[in-house]
Amino acid sequence: MATAGKVIKCRAAVAWEPNAPLVIEEIEVGPPQEGEIRIKIVASSLCHTEMFHLFEGKDKRGFPTVLGHEGAGVVESVGPGVTDFKPGDKVIPVSVAHCGECRFCKSPKTNLCERSWINDHVDLMSYPTTCFTCRGQPILQFTSTGTFSEYIVINQIYVVKIHDDAPLDRVCLLGCGIPTGYGAAVNTAGVTPGSVCAVFGLGAVGLAAVMGCKNAGASRIFAVDINEQKFEKAKVFGATDFLNPKAYDKPISEVLAELTNGGVDFSIECVGNPEVMRAALESCIKGWGVSVLVGYTDVDFSARPIQLISGKTWKGTLLGGYKIKDSLPKLVNDYMTGKIMVDEFITHKMDLEQINDIVSPKSNNSIRTNLLDDLMNCFHKSLFKFHSFIF
Amino acid sequence: MATAGKVIKCRAAVAWEPNAPLVIEEIEVGPPQEGEIRIKIVASSLCHTEMFHLFEGKDKRGFPTVLGHEGAGVVESVGPGVTDFKPGDKVIPVSVAHCGECRFCKSPKTNLCERSWINDHVDLMSYPTTCFTCRGQPILQFTSTGTFSEYIVINQIYVVKIHDDAPLDRVCLLGCGIPTGYGAAVNTAGVTPGSVCAVFGLGAVGLAAVMGCKNAGASRIFAVDINEQKFEKAKVFGATDFLNPKAYDKPISEVLAELTNGGVDFSIECVGNPEVMRAALESCIKGWGVSVLVGYTDVDFSARPIQLISGKTWKGTLLGGYKIKDSLPKLVNDYMTGKIMVDEFITHKMDLEQINDIVSPKSNNSIRTNLLDDLMNCFHKSLFKFHSFIF
Repeated sequence: MATAGKVIKCRAAVAWEPNAPLVIEEIEVGPPQEGEIRIKIVASSLCHTEMFHLFEGKDKRGFPTVLGHEGAGVVESVGPGVTDFKPGDKVIPVSVAHCGECRFCKSPKTNLCERSWINDHVDLMSYPTTCFTCRGQPILQFTSTGTFSEYIVINQIYVVKIHDDAPLDRVCLLGCGIPTGYGAAVNTAGVTPGSVCAVFGLGAVGLAAVMGCKNAGASRIFAVDINEQKFEKAKVFGATDFLNPKAYDKPISEVLAELTNGGVDFSIECVGNPEVMRAALESCIKGWGVSVLVGYTDVDFSARPIQLISGKTWKGTLLGGYKIKDSLPKLVNDYMTGKIMVDEFITHKMDLEQINDIVSPKSNNSIRTNLLDDLMNCFHKSLFKFHSFIF
Repeated sequence: MATAGKVIKCRAAVAWEPNAPLVIEEIEVGPPQEGEIRIKIVASSLCHTEMFHLFEGKDKRGFPTVLGHEGAGVVESVGPGVTDFKPGDKVIPVSVAHCGECRFCKSPKTNLCERSWINDHVDLMSYPTTCFTCRGQPILQFTSTGTFSEYIVINQIYVVKIHDDAPLDRVCLLGCGIPTGYGAAVNTAGVTPGSVCAVFGLGAVGLAAVMGCKNAGASRIFAVDINEQKFEKAKVFGATDFLNPKAYDKPISEVLAELTNGGVDFSIECVGNPEVMRAALESCIKGWGVSVLVGYTDVDFSARPIQLISGKTWKGTLLGGYKIKDSLPKLVNDYMTGKIMVDEFITHKMDLEQINDIVSPKSNNSIRTNLLDDLMNCFHKSLFKFHSFIF
């Protein structure tokens, strides 16, 4: 393309500091270096992790930054040594890398990669080098992606080539939220046919977990949330029973134990709240119950030792355990052939300029109010992802 | 036998109240009822769980009681409906039942039994009915066994018939401590050949865990304890590396990460201290590390969510996951054929009358001092089991 080898000036939503509106800026994105790819981002969705970093994170070093890590786009140009991608390829850049060569990538037991930023920079929420500059200043790429920019440069180990016909304004959701919840059920929990499951928190991740339980053959799927308006959507994805913990005067784990003769076989926590994590574990049946922690928070979770000693297992997952290079193209195909739902997660489509209508704490319009009600008014008032914001 | 059908008067060490010496009393043990077996206890060993109940437990309802749950003996008589046992059989009564008929017993995924006292009476540490009376008062059977008595009556679902030639003063240790640690490694953790393991706390359970790691083919076994005198014994059971957390000015998890290129594949906590549980999890390698919680305490354990989200698994175990009726006779045979060690766990042999030399907080003789040093002076000053006390 005509831009190859040159610095690209484009628009991006810059988070200059925590707890402040994003600013639409003109930024500079240099050409890709060795092993890197420059991608024109076509669509991006909004994840709770952005909101957490902007408003709740305990570590404020990760600024200024360009948020966004659920994007999809087209390769603009590639740097030296990149042979698996060419300009025009449809791709999804992902926050979880797959170099294919390290001991983690070579192990079937994990989707982590030793070369990923996650190994050493979780607190910063980004690798400390970046492709963005704005007003002469380097701007971080949130979780190494930064898809709230029209262009990004990212190492090829983070990039997945997908089907040429994939609709980018849909499959961007497969960059994080949907695989995270879906894989938590089908990979990490290993939901078995006929089993009884409970999903705590019905954001996008929780809904994807419900869909995973359903597709894995669960006989009964409890959808748990304090916002009952989400139950209708959860039903679309396969939930069979609906529980609002606020409607009971006893712990939800006791309610579930009574309804299931001792507890569920699998529980999946999609909120990011230590109390909910505990409730999800306690809701499992002793002997073989498996609870999977998906929601992120940076404070301790806890439980009584007897919960594990009695035979329960506590696990966790990042991106649902999917190795990106192998799995994401398959998930895109699964969407295109109707095996998994994606469209049903989308509630709004907006332009980049509208991003503060949702993200900015100073915004007060009705879209933001409605969205934040869904984002925030969940189990125990934690933030979590529900709606997808597409620009 | 001549005593069949009659009340037996015998000696037992009664714990009338917490934090007090045991009292050797003459107690009455009635004949076995439907499904029950009366056992003449020949030998019993001492477990940390007794000490915890007597000195540290938060719930003081479980008194008066006869402690002891690592016993071995001979069937004296059987009640109506008992067909699998006859007088003279060598047996081990176990605190974990196996009825063989409930959904738990029928599942290969757990060794819990729905008919066990553990289901509903963990706080009390005993089923509320008992075979013991003393001075006209019912005395509980600790964890449904109460082997610090010369005779006990117990339901057949708790009893395992073992080899006729088994030495009862040795295999009593197979009633709890050794299977608990050994099974934590070979069953619950599922230690794999060539793997790197760490065992926290070198009491009897920890030493048995070391033996389990060794027999499962681990290539490197770190033995971790703040009492370095235990390292020599740990070497006997197969430990290859020895770490005293007090010898370092950084967390033991960081020490292990440096020594193992990122952390161990399997860690087993055999102390019962929340800080050690956390350290054991943090010592695991991300991606696939498995930490097993064996030590019991009744306060919360905790960790950061990223520990699980990064792919580690937290499990727990009761009696090492062994279904007693199938597994304990095999373990007895494994001992008799030299496949597992038992003799090496035994440090003292005593008579029942000497029990306060060890158990009583008012005792101050040298045996108790030495034993309690081993029992108590472990990682972070928690109690845990090391020596076996046999009468």
